[in-house]
Amino acid sequence: MAILRVKKLDYLGASLITGLLLPLVMRYSTPSNLQLQIAQEKQQLISELMEKNNFASWIIFVRETSVNPDPILELVAAGDIVWESAFIFLKTKEGVHKTALVGNYDAEAEKKKGLWDEVIGYKEGISEPLLEIIEKANPETIAINYSLDDVIADGISHGMFLKLSNILSQYVERFVSAAPMIRSLRGIKTPTEVELITKACELTEEINTRVTQMLSLGMTELEIQELYYEEMNKEGVKEAWQRVSCPSVNAGPEKELGHLGPSELKIKKGHTLHNDFGVKLNGYCSDIQRMWFFGKEEEVPEELMHAYETVHEAITKAAEYIKPGLTGYSVDKIARDHVIIRGYEEYGHALGHQLGTEAHDGGVLLGPLWERYGDIPKGEIEEGNVFTLELHVNTKNYGTVSLEENVVITKEGCRFLVPRQEKFIFVTI
Amino acid sequence: MAILRVKKLDYLGASLITGLLLPLVMRYSTPSNLQLQIAQEKQQLISELMEKNNFASWIIFVRETSVNPDPILELVAAGDIVWESAFIFLKTKEGVHKTALVGNYDAEAEKKKGLWDEVIGYKEGISEPLLEIIEKANPETIAINYSLDDVIADGISHGMFLKLSNILSQYVERFVSAAPMIRSLRGIKTPTEVELITKACELTEEINTRVTQMLSLGMTELEIQELYYEEMNKEGVKEAWQRVSCPSVNAGPEKELGHLGPSELKIKKGHTLHNDFGVKLNGYCSDIQRMWFFGKEEEVPEELMHAYETVHEAITKAAEYIKPGLTGYSVDKIARDHVIIRGYEEYGHALGHQLGTEAHDGGVLLGPLWERYGDIPKGEIEEGNVFTLELHVNTKNYGTVSLEENVVITKEGCRFLVPRQEKFIFVTI
Repeated sequence: MAILRVKKLDYLGASLITGLLLPLVMRYSTPSNLQLQIAQEKQQLISELMEKNNFASWIIFVRETSVNPDPILELVAAGDIVWESAFIFLKTKEGVHKTALVGNYDAEAEKKKGLWDEVIGYKEGISEPLLEIIEKANPETIAINYSLDDVIADGISHGMFLKLSNILSQYVERFVSAAPMIRSLRGIKTPTEVELITKACELTEEINTRVTQMLSLGMTELEIQELYYEEMNKEGVKEAWQRVSCPSVNAGPEKELGHLGPSELKIKKGHTLHNDFGVKLNGYCSDIQRMWFFGKEEEVPEELMHAYETVHEAITKAAEYIKPGLTGYSVDKIARDHVIIRGYEEYGHALGHQLGTEAHDGGVLLGPLWERYGDIPKGEIEEGNVFTLELHVNTKNYGTVSLEENVVITKEGCRFLVPRQEKFIFVTI
Repeated sequence: MAILRVKKLDYLGASLITGLLLPLVMRYSTPSNLQLQIAQEKQQLISELMEKNNFASWIIFVRETSVNPDPILELVAAGDIVWESAFIFLKTKEGVHKTALVGNYDAEAEKKKGLWDEVIGYKEGISEPLLEIIEKANPETIAINYSLDDVIADGISHGMFLKLSNILSQYVERFVSAAPMIRSLRGIKTPTEVELITKACELTEEINTRVTQMLSLGMTELEIQELYYEEMNKEGVKEAWQRVSCPSVNAGPEKELGHLGPSELKIKKGHTLHNDFGVKLNGYCSDIQRMWFFGKEEEVPEELMHAYETVHEAITKAAEYIKPGLTGYSVDKIARDHVIIRGYEEYGHALGHQLGTEAHDGGVLLGPLWERYGDIPKGEIEEGNVFTLELHVNTKNYGTVSLEENVVITKEGCRFLVPRQEKFIFVTI
């Protein structure tokens, strides 16, 4: 291929389109029409977020994003770019004016997206037209994608920052970090995003159900993991986190929950099975923990039932409490206190993280104020955030009991994306 | 999954491993054992390259590379990391001392790689142990991955650069750009990399051969593209560049070569078929152009034959000339002059680009000294570089003739990775 016109599309999005015509359907990346729809929805949030953060302008300054991406770009611009490009959002009296300043070969593709008020294709270089736009608008602040603490908001490379500082040398003092806006833009899931995460959750539960039919006593954790892999392959989806522990599969009381991935341990009558599993479907992740019991409901030992109820109630309490405007740590505390009151050691992790294109999607964390979580649990929960609610307790004789649900934050509370687990899944074989 | 221990492995590498057990084998990403082997081979180059560039130390400073990667990291460290990490190369009297300073949860995995003289797992934060290492070594220069011009060498984000500048505040004046070393590290393909690119080339030619058997008069470009997609699917490989034009498929004289992707044009007797096609196999790309003629060898019109010979000879001349130490533009000139002498308009692109994990792998370009290529063609060709040699000429009546071969630079010249195209592929149907 000649270096004449380097125009890369989203590889995986493209495979999906073709995949539909072929026996093998790869469904783990976001189809380009949905990617575009998400970008349209995200862009509708920008005006309010710029207002809230007091940004007069925002510049996303990137090049060859397939090699060195800015994590926020795909969500607001739907796709990769090759040449140096500036996506410029300017606050005006009439609202936010959105300009895509791209290499002239890329201009047609940007116009087709319909995302921009103006698409400018440059030929010689980006410096002159970019400076011109900023000189004309003369914004009081210029938000740039850098952050010391947040990888999601740290999309500009140092070389590109130097380049931008050269081009806009008279304006460098107006540069501010765009981090708080980017966290909201990513964290507030749009209707399409919530739908895609919900579909990933539904498929996760569908696969859980199918695998349940195939379980038999004596099967090892590794064999069960293989059943999951086969179902994922049939569905053309990917694991939501590292494959070695997705699904995680923990059989019986002997397994430590921290162990990375399944072993040769077998499922036995009177034992539990625990699984932490999520898929990436259409570019969005689920992350669900479920528990099985091998026996009848009346055979569950009292100690195990007490643990199960504790975990279930802790999630209930957190779900009833959570709503927009709260800090992350205050929600974690509700569940954590319940576990302690019920006589268990508190869990050694956060109650919940955000879900999105990544299983750990960044932003506010429902976590305790421990040093290793820094200021992240102090952030404010927003309507449209999607969180996991997950925790475990350890029993003396029956191993660990752990559940995890996925919820979206609504105006006044939260909604479970798929029905939560109420009881053990009982397998009598 | 709890935010307790976030340890992500290479998703695609992992799918490959499991893929081997399942009917569907995804072969487009580098298996982790080969990735490790490549990192070992790359690290053997570092000592010489630090010497050549006069670097007393080199620091790769990264976090969550699955979200925000440093393009050189996978090649020298074989995989992603999650917590803030510093990979430190220090010139000493005994050679280069290599330290991986990573979060304590990642330390075990780094030790297993066997790439590092020392692996330090930090618990509280990276600042103190990093400063300690630099204070102890007191290097005169500290090479950092930033570059205004080269995306491959611009792996440090601005936020991470600020963080590093804070940690090493007394040493900021010793910071230099690691760009020249990174270009060589990426551009000099190791034996394993050359083997992987060769395998991608072999599979490309294998698929060309299979599709040739399936061609029939009246078939459209789009139908032919589908044949390629089916073969790629069977092989579990991906397109080497954007799928819409990989394969590109151009039938007959009416098609403009710049057109993005196949159309409804049909193949006809007495016409040519041109195809620009490459696959990504085991993470490495091929990029090959081939030409078919629908008819017998003696039926090729003289004008078409003259064009074919011109393109073929231009590649021959460039391949005979190219060797380590030459500038990129001097090689382009050899082919370009030949085309002009033979009475054709010169081609509007570079004669060749580098091939690797990307179809356009960056580094020195075999291109003319045109403004849009900047200084890249002035770079020096190195042993181990893998280049395309590609050009086209336009005929009056028979469309465009274009060929592309892939070569590796040897000590004294170059070697074609697979047998080059000598004649049209004649299809008599």
